[in-house]
Amino acid sequence: MSGHHATPPGTPEVTRLLADWIVALEGSDIPDEVRREGLRTFVNWVGCAVGGARHETVDAALRAIGPFSGPKAATVLGRPERLDPLKAALVNGITSHVLDYDDTHLKTIIHPAGPVASALLALAETRKMSGKDFLTALIVGVEVECRLGNAVYPDHYDRGWHITGTAGVFGAAAAVGKAIGLSRQKMQWALGIAASQAAGLREMFGTMTKSFHPGKSAENGLLAALLAEAGFDSSERALEAPRGFACVMSQKQDWTEILGELGTRWEAGLNSYKPFACGIVIHPTIDGCLQVRTEIGERVHDIAKVHLTTHPLVLELTGKRTPKTGLEGKFSVFHSAACALLRGDGAPTAFTDEVVNLPEIIGLRDRIEATADPACHEASVTIDVTFGDGSTMQKHVHRAIGSRDVPLSDAQIDTKFRNQSALVIGTAATEALLALAWKTPELADVATVPRHSVAVPELAT
Amino acid sequence: MSGHHATPPGTPEVTRLLADWIVALEGSDIPDEVRREGLRTFVNWVGCAVGGARHETVDAALRAIGPFSGPKAATVLGRPERLDPLKAALVNGITSHVLDYDDTHLKTIIHPAGPVASALLALAETRKMSGKDFLTALIVGVEVECRLGNAVYPDHYDRGWHITGTAGVFGAAAAVGKAIGLSRQKMQWALGIAASQAAGLREMFGTMTKSFHPGKSAENGLLAALLAEAGFDSSERALEAPRGFACVMSQKQDWTEILGELGTRWEAGLNSYKPFACGIVIHPTIDGCLQVRTEIGERVHDIAKVHLTTHPLVLELTGKRTPKTGLEGKFSVFHSAACALLRGDGAPTAFTDEVVNLPEIIGLRDRIEATADPACHEASVTIDVTFGDGSTMQKHVHRAIGSRDVPLSDAQIDTKFRNQSALVIGTAATEALLALAWKTPELADVATVPRHSVAVPELAT
Repeated sequence: MSGHHATPPGTPEVTRLLADWIVALEGSDIPDEVRREGLRTFVNWVGCAVGGARHETVDAALRAIGPFSGPKAATVLGRPERLDPLKAALVNGITSHVLDYDDTHLKTIIHPAGPVASALLALAETRKMSGKDFLTALIVGVEVECRLGNAVYPDHYDRGWHITGTAGVFGAAAAVGKAIGLSRQKMQWALGIAASQAAGLREMFGTMTKSFHPGKSAENGLLAALLAEAGFDSSERALEAPRGFACVMSQKQDWTEILGELGTRWEAGLNSYKPFACGIVIHPTIDGCLQVRTEIGERVHDIAKVHLTTHPLVLELTGKRTPKTGLEGKFSVFHSAACALLRGDGAPTAFTDEVVNLPEIIGLRDRIEATADPACHEASVTIDVTFGDGSTMQKHVHRAIGSRDVPLSDAQIDTKFRNQSALVIGTAATEALLALAWKTPELADVATVPRHSVAVPELAT
Repeated sequence: MSGHHATPPGTPEVTRLLADWIVALEGSDIPDEVRREGLRTFVNWVGCAVGGARHETVDAALRAIGPFSGPKAATVLGRPERLDPLKAALVNGITSHVLDYDDTHLKTIIHPAGPVASALLALAETRKMSGKDFLTALIVGVEVECRLGNAVYPDHYDRGWHITGTAGVFGAAAAVGKAIGLSRQKMQWALGIAASQAAGLREMFGTMTKSFHPGKSAENGLLAALLAEAGFDSSERALEAPRGFACVMSQKQDWTEILGELGTRWEAGLNSYKPFACGIVIHPTIDGCLQVRTEIGERVHDIAKVHLTTHPLVLELTGKRTPKTGLEGKFSVFHSAACALLRGDGAPTAFTDEVVNLPEIIGLRDRIEATADPACHEASVTIDVTFGDGSTMQKHVHRAIGSRDVPLSDAQIDTKFRNQSALVIGTAATEALLALAWKTPELADVATVPRHSVAVPELAT
């Protein structure tokens, strides 16, 4: 064996040990507060999947993919179309992320539910699964993807990998593998097949291909687990090998992030839910601008200029000066700030092609400047406003709404769910679906949730 | 726009210019000798796809994937099962590579046909395509994947990427995009969606997941082109952007390898075909050992030890000392040498579980040593044999059979095709298929080729 293949001395058997843990875990081993966060993760995801269901990105995907669907056992949430579970995993992964309104593991900027819930729920429509077992597998998947993310973040992300895609495929494989009861060895294979599909580039941000990433990682993770189940083998050390995931795709490999305190430190308990329909890094700015708007009232029309002092990632990720489309608007802190100030809006309605091109918005947007400050926390911002008469005001946001310190309450998750879902499937179906989603832990068959996500006469009345 | 997003000054618009070329190319622009090599590439690929069709890897893949297939419009070459074109692309990509017996672009060690032909032929079963247009698109796809490979090789490969997977997805997208007549912009999108699926790790070598790579890149490249056709957009500079394919996945980016001499320098004309059923780097050793066997006759049983002096990649890629399975045997230059010496075999029959575990083979294998010599050409080897009586002999292979300097003749491609295919679909069907494959340039519908790849009564008689 060549020296190039050798694992450095002291490298733990990461893949085997992680697979061991996944296989041995019982639902009752998961603390109540983590199970509760898993349920909040799922409820928020269902709302986002329905909310994004009519986006043109989804229409385009369905035009291309629909003709190749196998037996249509699985639901596209919020739409009449049905697909085979692999394709449904792909499309639900797209819908749930397309509005950039889903959940975030703040340490890594992974959006955990898209890859994991999309894969698992699509499978659950063909292999009956209780709500309890579903949530156990969901939490396992989220835990795996966030731990892998921690192990390689930030180097992996800085290189240009869209970590929701690259880590997400492992989360999906682990969740499905747990749900279908893979052996330890087959779980290692599933992680290996997942590793060979880990992909997704940040260059795609601002295009339809960004939301394709969680979709494809859902489909590919589901496929990985099903292939392993069928005896399709793979490397059994795909995570830690010198030519495995962490070494090929990152300069940093911190194995303790994957193996340390397994079962006691829960990354799945740290999930957060976006209050605004764009990248998490803009949220402090929107939060602050909404506060400014409330405080100054009609004077928003007298603003001469605005200066933002932000964390460097804000400009790196959302520095688009002249967005032309709604999707590009999500990658413009300038548009987002202007829209929050002038319209009080950070919801999906703030990121339409029409709003991005409104002369009034463009006028203010172009008078907003931003400076990156490495000392600024990711959940903070300082906003300096100068008015036409030369007077000024400053707004400092210490921790934005939606951050771990200021989490969305269950009621706020409900409001977010309703606002998205009602536009797609109507109020009555939305209320029924929301109530059902919260009851997931008690459901004998979790597939009743997606089946209630579509506006049908008996639900709409 | 942040400085992190800026493309370095002087970077050409690689994606746009490449897409321009793909879209504008006419079949008649391709020189006759390149078209001929494209045909040889296809004939060799058909033989390999049929030859690998009964491998247990394919059985496992079909068990997992079959139940999710859409309308079964496409053939799994050499098997009775039919699948939708996306799934057929995946499975034919696996079958054609599973015996490690396919084609090789020697500059990059890409196996070009697997991703490209698998995608294109599966599509051709649902969208009628003449043999001439099929070959044009095939050559375009091979050209694109090999040029992208050249641009990032060797750094990309050295990092641990299985370049057949990572470059292959672009080749498949380009070929399909050409065949379905994508516009320049949609071709850019197709390359972008491909970039977001570029994956495959060398850690998987020696497992079923290695042949999964060309399969998945075929499926994913086909999907990329179909999504772009449906209006699913993407970055339009996925190749050259700082967070695009070449910069994220390689330290080296040589844009002239992609854009230089387009239409005059043809990488697709440099394809080669493996005479032996294992990694190309072992071929000089097998060639040399077969020559030694011929020269020494019964004295093979008197060999005390063998010393190989090889290119460093031989040990890096195929340095397995104690293979346990046929698949692992392909990654052992020691097993391969022993089998060539003792049995005169470098065909798929040399790489079965049974042969790898034969005591006689193991006995000689363990008396074979190898030294890497950076001065040794990749197509060369020096073999020093010591016999039981202390006498020695040396065999130097300057350029192995199957290399660009000693290419397989059409007749040798025929022999290789027959030896593989007859075991799977019988002699009569093999002869009919082989004759038909060579007639591809004249076929009004190339889909007649896959439809004749299955043993059926009227063909077998």
